[in-house]
Formats: sequence, C-alpha cells, structure tokens
Amino acid sequence: MVRKVVKLVLVRHGESIANRDNVYTGWNDVALSAKGIQQAKSAGLKVAQISNFAPTHIHTSVLSRAIITANIIADICDFLYLPITKTWRLNERHYGALRGINKDVSRKVFGKEQVLKWRRGFDSVPPLLAQPVQDRRYQNCDMHLMPQGESLHQTQRRLMPYYIDHIAPELLAGRDQLIVAHGSSLRALIKKIEDISDTDIVKLEVPNAQPIVYTFDENLNIVKKEILKND
Amino acid sequence: MVRKVVKLVLVRHGESIANRDNVYTGWNDVALSAKGIQQAKSAGLKVAQISNFAPTHIHTSVLSRAIITANIIADICDFLYLPITKTWRLNERHYGALRGINKDVSRKVFGKEQVLKWRRGFDSVPPLLAQPVQDRRYQNCDMHLMPQGESLHQTQRRLMPYYIDHIAPELLAGRDQLIVAHGSSLRALIKKIEDISDTDIVKLEVPNAQPIVYTFDENLNIVKKEILKND
Repeated sequence: MVRKVVKLVLVRHGESIANRDNVYTGWNDVALSAKGIQQAKSAGLKVAQISNFAPTHIHTSVLSRAIITANIIADICDFLYLPITKTWRLNERHYGALRGINKDVSRKVFGKEQVLKWRRGFDSVPPLLAQPVQDRRYQNCDMHLMPQGESLHQTQRRLMPYYIDHIAPELLAGRDQLIVAHGSSLRALIKKIEDISDTDIVKLEVPNAQPIVYTFDENLNIVKKEILKND
Repeated sequence: MVRKVVKLVLVRHGESIANRDNVYTGWNDVALSAKGIQQAKSAGLKVAQISNFAPTHIHTSVLSRAIITANIIADICDFLYLPITKTWRLNERHYGALRGINKDVSRKVFGKEQVLKWRRGFDSVPPLLAQPVQDRRYQNCDMHLMPQGESLHQTQRRLMPYYIDHIAPELLAGRDQLIVAHGSSLRALIKKIEDISDTDIVKLEVPNAQPIVYTFDENLNIVKKEILKND
C-alpha cells in the first residue's frame, strides 16, 4: 500500500560557539555550545513526537555542528541505525572572507548597509577567499570547482542537485526523510520548497534546533507545514 | 603516489549494560553503560594517536552500542565528516533464544559444558528463536533468509561478504578503514584475517574498546598487529 502523504523534517543544528559569539562561520568547523547540545536534545524529543514520522534516511552536511546535532536526534529518536549521508552540498552558505569575523565588527568596518546586503540579499556575494577551503573534508572535490564565497542563491544552486537526486525521489516513493543542516542552507531549500520570492526570503529566519515538519501529498505539494517551537 | 602500507583498525564497542549485567545480548539493542561511554572516549583518544591513520570510511553494525561508540570515536578523532555505513552483517553474533538470559543462569539451566560449547565452539549453534528478530532495522531484509541464532562460523559467513565487497577493496586501494563492531563479529573477522584455526579461536578474546591496529602491505599481508590496551 502506497502512503498518501509523506513527511520531510528539517532541523537547523543547535547553537554553535560561533552563533554564541556572533561570528560568521560558513564552512569553518565549529563545535556546538553547551546550550546547543541541550537544544539538539530538545529537538530530538520534538522529532520523536511527530506522529507517523518514520524516516528511512538522515541527510546532513560535512560540518560537525550539524552531524553532532543529527547524531543526538538519532539517539533520542532510536534512528541511530538509519543510513546517514554527509554531503558538502548541505553545508552552510560559504561566507568567504567574512568567516571568523564578528558580525558587529564587520558592521563597523564595512558599514551597516553593506553588511545587511551581504547577509540578507539573495544574490549578494561576500568578499571571496583567495582560494577554496583546504580540508580533508573536501579531498575528493575538484578544487577548481569549489566556492570561495557564496550568495544565498549560489548556496541554493549547489544544494538543489542533492535534494533533487537523493531526497525528492525518496519522498516521491513515500519514504519520510530527515535533514539536519544550517541556517542559510535551510533558508535556500525552504525558498525552493515554498516558492518564496527573492524579496520575501529576506524575512525568513530558521532558528536553531526547531524542527520544521512538511507534510506533502504524493506529488510533493505541501499539505501542511508545522514549526515545533521551543516552549 | 600509492602508499606502500595501509591500516585497518578494529574496535569493539564500549561496555554495554548487558556486558555489565552478564547477559547474552546478540541482536538485542542495548545501550552503553556509563563505563562503556568512558571506554569509548578513551578508545577515541587512542585511535587519534595512531600514526599515519587517515581512514576514509567507518563501518559499523545497526546496533546502537556500536554506532554510539563509532560516533564518540569519530567526534574525538575529527572523523565526524567521514561516511559511515551501518550494516547488519557487522552485527554481533545472533545468540538465538539465549539473548536476554543471564550467563550464570544459563549455566545452571543447561549445564557448564553445554554453555561453554555454545559460547566458544566455532560451529555450535545456540537454541534458535522461533522466528527472526522483527525490527525496523531489518525491514529491507528478506525475513526468510535472516538468522534465528548463529554459530560463530555462521556469523563469519554472513559478515565476510561485506568485508570482501566493501572493506578489502578500499584497503587494496591504499585507503585506511575503521570498523567498530562487536566481540564475536570481530572474533569471526580476526579469525579470517589472521587465519586462526577452529580450535585456537576459542582462546581469542576481544575486550571492549581496545583498538586493534593492523598494518598491511599492498597485498594485504599483515606487516604488524598492535593492540592499544587500557593503561
């Protein structure tokens, strides 16, 4: 029997030490803060209570803050045995030369308006790094083709091939899926799923560790969207 | 440049609550004890110190005690981003109808000799379950073909196809691999790797969370074996 509806749950990782310290992170690999670990546990309890949610696969980025959040949720939900794929395509937006810089400092250096544009404009590209991030994580990637900084639009373009090839087919086959990723990579995905305009996306925030539950019909039209907020 | 040697590291999970309580576990899914979590962390620190060990893949079972141990090691070693495969073929030996029974009680019920045979004989099959384990973990498996109890030999037979198809080819390509599994599934694998006889395997113990480091030459002949014991 094919199920009539299917569920996709999105979770942004718990607070990282960079979120806590108000620093641009992007592809820097930073740990969860103590608060972030608690948030991940609380997200796990919320995911465990979603009715009729039985994912067959967990998808996350290659960045530790997302992977640890996914592992904590999996532990609490008894999903540990599920296959998990870690892909750079679900990474946070690459913040280029801004990564590691405090957001308040960046406003002083570059001016409020420029920073607002970089942070919220759909097509605004931050100052680029001189070369792509060199890291074991990306050793199987062609460095000529990897970003040195990304707009939200560019983030969306590198993310969607993974969604189209590895997540949507599962949903279409009636299999629930769980994605644990990042603020901007999830904004980019949600923009596509909900068909949000370039101007309206500016207003969308994805808070840490609050599961977003989509219920789709068999053609992946949205039947229901629910955000499991903190109490 | 192809590397001349390659490393395979085997780790048995940290102490489980069933290890602690001296109970047959097999395919029952039990948690790590508090001591087991500490052991997993300590194993992680040891794995982090293995020189020239840069695994490209982590292999584990679908049982939580192994997966959690693997996740703890990965966190400590900065291997979280690595692909991880969870397969029932690396599961613990299936202890059939003995699972959940205290080992001392089993000796009283069945006699010391029978129990020693079940536990240590290479071909001794424990009393079978009436049917295979019904669990979400095995929902993609043909239940007609799944075990209801296994000898160590049968454990080896279902484990080796995974090793031959997914681990050995990686080692032959010069890529280090990490396996986090179980006492008996690792005994079965080690018997094959070291070509240990049916009688000598009786004496082999694989303690919780003590990494076993094999260094192989390019034809997978053993150059060195090292056990990273607890201090």
